[in-house]
Amino acid sequence: MPDTVAPNLVAAVSESRHWDRMMEMAAIGAFTDADGNIGVNRPCLSELDRQARRLLISYAQQAGLPVSVDALGNLFLRHEGSDPTLAPVLTGSHMDSQPNGGRFDGIWGVMAGLEAVQAIRESGVATRRAIEVVAWTNEEGGRFAPGCMGSMAYAGFAKPDTWDAVTDLQGVTVGDALAEQHAAEADLPRRPLGVVDGIAPHAYLEAHIEQGPILEMEGDEIGIVTGIQGSRWFLVEIQGRTDHAGTSPLRIRRDAMQDAVRAITALNALMHDPADVLRFTVASMEVFPNTSNTVADRVRFTIDFRHPDNEVLQARGNAIAGVIQAALQTCRFTLTERFHAVPVNFQQEVPAAVERAAKAQGLRARRMPSGAFHDAQFMVPLCPTGMLFVPCRNGVSHHPAEYSTAAQLAAGTRVLAQALTELANT
Amino acid sequence: MPDTVAPNLVAAVSESRHWDRMMEMAAIGAFTDADGNIGVNRPCLSELDRQARRLLISYAQQAGLPVSVDALGNLFLRHEGSDPTLAPVLTGSHMDSQPNGGRFDGIWGVMAGLEAVQAIRESGVATRRAIEVVAWTNEEGGRFAPGCMGSMAYAGFAKPDTWDAVTDLQGVTVGDALAEQHAAEADLPRRPLGVVDGIAPHAYLEAHIEQGPILEMEGDEIGIVTGIQGSRWFLVEIQGRTDHAGTSPLRIRRDAMQDAVRAITALNALMHDPADVLRFTVASMEVFPNTSNTVADRVRFTIDFRHPDNEVLQARGNAIAGVIQAALQTCRFTLTERFHAVPVNFQQEVPAAVERAAKAQGLRARRMPSGAFHDAQFMVPLCPTGMLFVPCRNGVSHHPAEYSTAAQLAAGTRVLAQALTELANT
Repeated sequence: MPDTVAPNLVAAVSESRHWDRMMEMAAIGAFTDADGNIGVNRPCLSELDRQARRLLISYAQQAGLPVSVDALGNLFLRHEGSDPTLAPVLTGSHMDSQPNGGRFDGIWGVMAGLEAVQAIRESGVATRRAIEVVAWTNEEGGRFAPGCMGSMAYAGFAKPDTWDAVTDLQGVTVGDALAEQHAAEADLPRRPLGVVDGIAPHAYLEAHIEQGPILEMEGDEIGIVTGIQGSRWFLVEIQGRTDHAGTSPLRIRRDAMQDAVRAITALNALMHDPADVLRFTVASMEVFPNTSNTVADRVRFTIDFRHPDNEVLQARGNAIAGVIQAALQTCRFTLTERFHAVPVNFQQEVPAAVERAAKAQGLRARRMPSGAFHDAQFMVPLCPTGMLFVPCRNGVSHHPAEYSTAAQLAAGTRVLAQALTELANT
Repeated sequence: MPDTVAPNLVAAVSESRHWDRMMEMAAIGAFTDADGNIGVNRPCLSELDRQARRLLISYAQQAGLPVSVDALGNLFLRHEGSDPTLAPVLTGSHMDSQPNGGRFDGIWGVMAGLEAVQAIRESGVATRRAIEVVAWTNEEGGRFAPGCMGSMAYAGFAKPDTWDAVTDLQGVTVGDALAEQHAAEADLPRRPLGVVDGIAPHAYLEAHIEQGPILEMEGDEIGIVTGIQGSRWFLVEIQGRTDHAGTSPLRIRRDAMQDAVRAITALNALMHDPADVLRFTVASMEVFPNTSNTVADRVRFTIDFRHPDNEVLQARGNAIAGVIQAALQTCRFTLTERFHAVPVNFQQEVPAAVERAAKAQGLRARRMPSGAFHDAQFMVPLCPTGMLFVPCRNGVSHHPAEYSTAAQLAAGTRVLAQALTELANT
């Protein structure tokens, strides 16, 4: 295996073309926040999502890459190998954003895959295996929960129709939104969902901004991702009774807001971690009827709980219901687990290929786990899997201030191109 | 002054006509909740509000009562007195509802005023003074905060354009909503806002459902309201920073949701009242960006704080800012007071008239304060003011289960008719 630089290939990665396309893509769903940061709000399966996909398809056509789509709307751009019968190498990420998101999260992994493949083609580097660039549907879960629907369905973690009845805040279902998207993309060839003819991908390598502060703090250029911590998402619904805020004595109320505050306070205690490894977040809340002078009869809030140690993930996650039960004073509640991904550790093949490429290109790289979850974690049972990270400014993500420089992205793309080439020739 | 029954007048109040009209009115904005209760969602200055006003105007026309409207959209139906130069007696309430409201709150006071006046006219009872039935704009504050805009502007508590820039959740301003309403009611004569030619009303008497459990618990039919407790409404905005829920360590976060929970917990302690007289409610909250895997950077919540003792209302209300400041760990905040009504005690004239009428009609009545605020409190500086309450089932209000029987409403209307007649002849 080559651990020297492939100079033609590295040179063929165009920093300016890649950056210009990133910015062209970032204009779809762009907004400017109060501090002048340019963010992106591009919900999955929306008209903006379709515009972004059309732009990607136009780039693929320029590069000569056939495009196909599967039942979940996952989009594939194929660079054919010299032996089309071999299992392909898969690379990519997602194109949907958080509601108040940045211009790099997800979309960079797709665009880096495209640029890497285009560089491979333009440099004349041969690959025995095909390389497919994939854009997974709904990684973020910002419009429809849970996230990673496209990759979970692809990898067989769930049936394709699992989430058809899931609704967004406007009441639109996943099923209807998918049907609308398929109708708008009826010109694309449809490919079967998931592993085709029993041939799993040969490997999966996803490029992504770090979404954390480590690489920047340590002065590293490339993160060689060793695994992904586990995540459990829950929805808590607290049911009380409305009352007039001026007349009803507090002792007779069944105030869902007050019980929600008690529940969150008790969960903070359950999730306390002096080592600060555990991640516990209540970030979404809806209150009904949500008018200032009527006691709330219903409060829904989310729990996002993550930990790299599966024992902790299971023990504390399973304790949530009992802690809420004990905390509530007057209301009833329901707890629904909407997402459960155990921690994964990547096998050695792909991280090793990333490490060799970074080393060959003289880049400072470090091995690290991923704090965020990614589509990559669902590929682990299918094939050797890995990710590579590039730094992002101040570790900020899911925010308009999210930023990586053109040079940082190009460096990551060059490593990706070399690692994909190696994987496609083994 | 008569303290015997006026038999023609009492007989002229039609329980069935009044109930049928109440139900016809309740159909505008009606919805059925999961328990089969029929509620009303009729926001002020909405198309549904205008439909309800048109229905009221049609009743007024049937009864021969001229209708006029002022700059705030307050609607007046005038029964002329034998001496039109005398100050009129004013009665009425509001027609807007809570978002998840009932069929009786507010609207009953308007319809009872109409029925009382119609009974006075049909029974041939003479009144020296005119009686005007008023429908005040935006008492609830459910769509546009604060409530009582119409009565506050009428009574000179605020200039007519004070709230023009206030927006609803969709971003529509009060100014635009009022202009739309005026355009739709351009056929109505416009009357000056407030006290006309220096002649304040002779008296104001508002009929309302109790919105609390006392009358029903005590087996009383009529509440003679002696005053209204004070109310202070605040909006709290907590500003933190978004972060990725999976990657950002808790120690570096500025989580607006967590600081909101701390603030509410601290406010609960400030507002603790073993006597259970104080009313403290956090019933509305908005979270931004409100997605489960991005730490919230902004949380807005409301405070509704009421007390009958002005010293308590001032001392604890003024302590809110300091308590929030001390509770927050990582975020900044702003506190805006949106409504401030000191406790009022009604002068004796109007409650005495209500008491005489109830006694003359053989009804069980009790003197009581109002826990809810009402348009009546702003009339106190203008003229002798009072209210009368009828029971509502289980004390429930601001909810589709809100209910009073046709007989309870008719009893209240008969007392109202007699008290208005007395006030209009003094």
